[in-house]
Amino acid sequence: MSSHHIVRDDQEPALIIANGASCNEELLGQLLEWSPLVIVLDSAIERVINLNIKVDVVLGDFDRGFNPHELLQSQYPIEIIHTPDQNKTDLEKAFDYLIERKIPAVNVVWATGKRADHTITNLTTIIQYRDSLKIVILDDHSKVFLLPKKFEKWYTANTPISLIPVGKVSGIHSENLFYPLKNDNLTIGYKTGSSNHVTKDGIVTILHEEGDLLLMECMD
Amino acid sequence: MSSHHIVRDDQEPALIIANGASCNEELLGQLLEWSPLVIVLDSAIERVINLNIKVDVVLGDFDRGFNPHELLQSQYPIEIIHTPDQNKTDLEKAFDYLIERKIPAVNVVWATGKRADHTITNLTTIIQYRDSLKIVILDDHSKVFLLPKKFEKWYTANTPISLIPVGKVSGIHSENLFYPLKNDNLTIGYKTGSSNHVTKDGIVTILHEEGDLLLMECMD
Repeated sequence: MSSHHIVRDDQEPALIIANGASCNEELLGQLLEWSPLVIVLDSAIERVINLNIKVDVVLGDFDRGFNPHELLQSQYPIEIIHTPDQNKTDLEKAFDYLIERKIPAVNVVWATGKRADHTITNLTTIIQYRDSLKIVILDDHSKVFLLPKKFEKWYTANTPISLIPVGKVSGIHSENLFYPLKNDNLTIGYKTGSSNHVTKDGIVTILHEEGDLLLMECMD
Repeated sequence: MSSHHIVRDDQEPALIIANGASCNEELLGQLLEWSPLVIVLDSAIERVINLNIKVDVVLGDFDRGFNPHELLQSQYPIEIIHTPDQNKTDLEKAFDYLIERKIPAVNVVWATGKRADHTITNLTTIIQYRDSLKIVILDDHSKVFLLPKKFEKWYTANTPISLIPVGKVSGIHSENLFYPLKNDNLTIGYKTGSSNHVTKDGIVTILHEEGDLLLMECMD
């Protein structure tokens, strides 16, 4: 079993394991080490149990022949949350659960890959939680989060940075990006800021006035 | 070598092999069999050559130590197109190339998976080609295309259908979907029509008035 339960600090981000493609075990292990709470979505629970990970919460509508009693035996104590609401995705329900528990931040893995509809929905749905939950989606190639209106972070030179608008984003300014943005607009499908990179070691600043802008740090 | 060159009919869709995650070889083989023209994007060429596929066109900015002379030997005849323009993705440049050659339709593989920025950009960029090129993006779990204002197609019952708006889409009506849409609006990030499915064997009709709406047929 993972030892993540030894460190319990609710200031560390929770971890949601969603139902897309599995990430590499090193990434998963790093995130588990510091996570005070591990939530698994629906049928991903089978894959997670096979990895010998202790789960705190399993959440879903369990419409695929899930047996909570078997699960209870090997994972006790575990909270099983049945969420039949069809108007939200399981990932959104997990975010709502964390907000209710007043947990401020979460990392999400296995949210990408496999089905394209789930991937694009999972990546873009995080914009709804701007004011309520700090969300980072990670996979083997990508780290994705929503930008505040003013974003500043230290990066090493040449770090790949992509700016992906969810809808239309206006009034974007950047400093220390190789392809600078100056009062630019980006619109999903028509003009995105994909495949930019950091010019030199130092602070990258990205400002925007209106809209929802994702930052993606991606590597091949 | 694939035998795709035996059948040459420019009414069949061309095939673009992009630079994301590889699909399974069965899907690739099916698409190659009927494709009159195979275009490979940039550094994917190394993976493609290893699969013993005859390529017609390789296109990219080749900024990663690509050697066209070695390639020419094993792939002759091949067209090598150097496209240094940084304002378009390689996939967009390949679409432009097909339009210039008056090829009306294309299937795209390897456009998803790996980097999240490339995945979301590739899936959504197809909306720019509504009037100029019929594009279908395929991977092991998904088939994605842009809907015309009125869409009708025969499906078997329970086929998963997701409607993903690129931006905001208004005035959506559906017939024969399990969760019906009636003058509904969808907005990326806020409300999508993911994880719907066909009610009964027969024609599915989807109408929309404004915006760009992707249909995704996805399977776990």
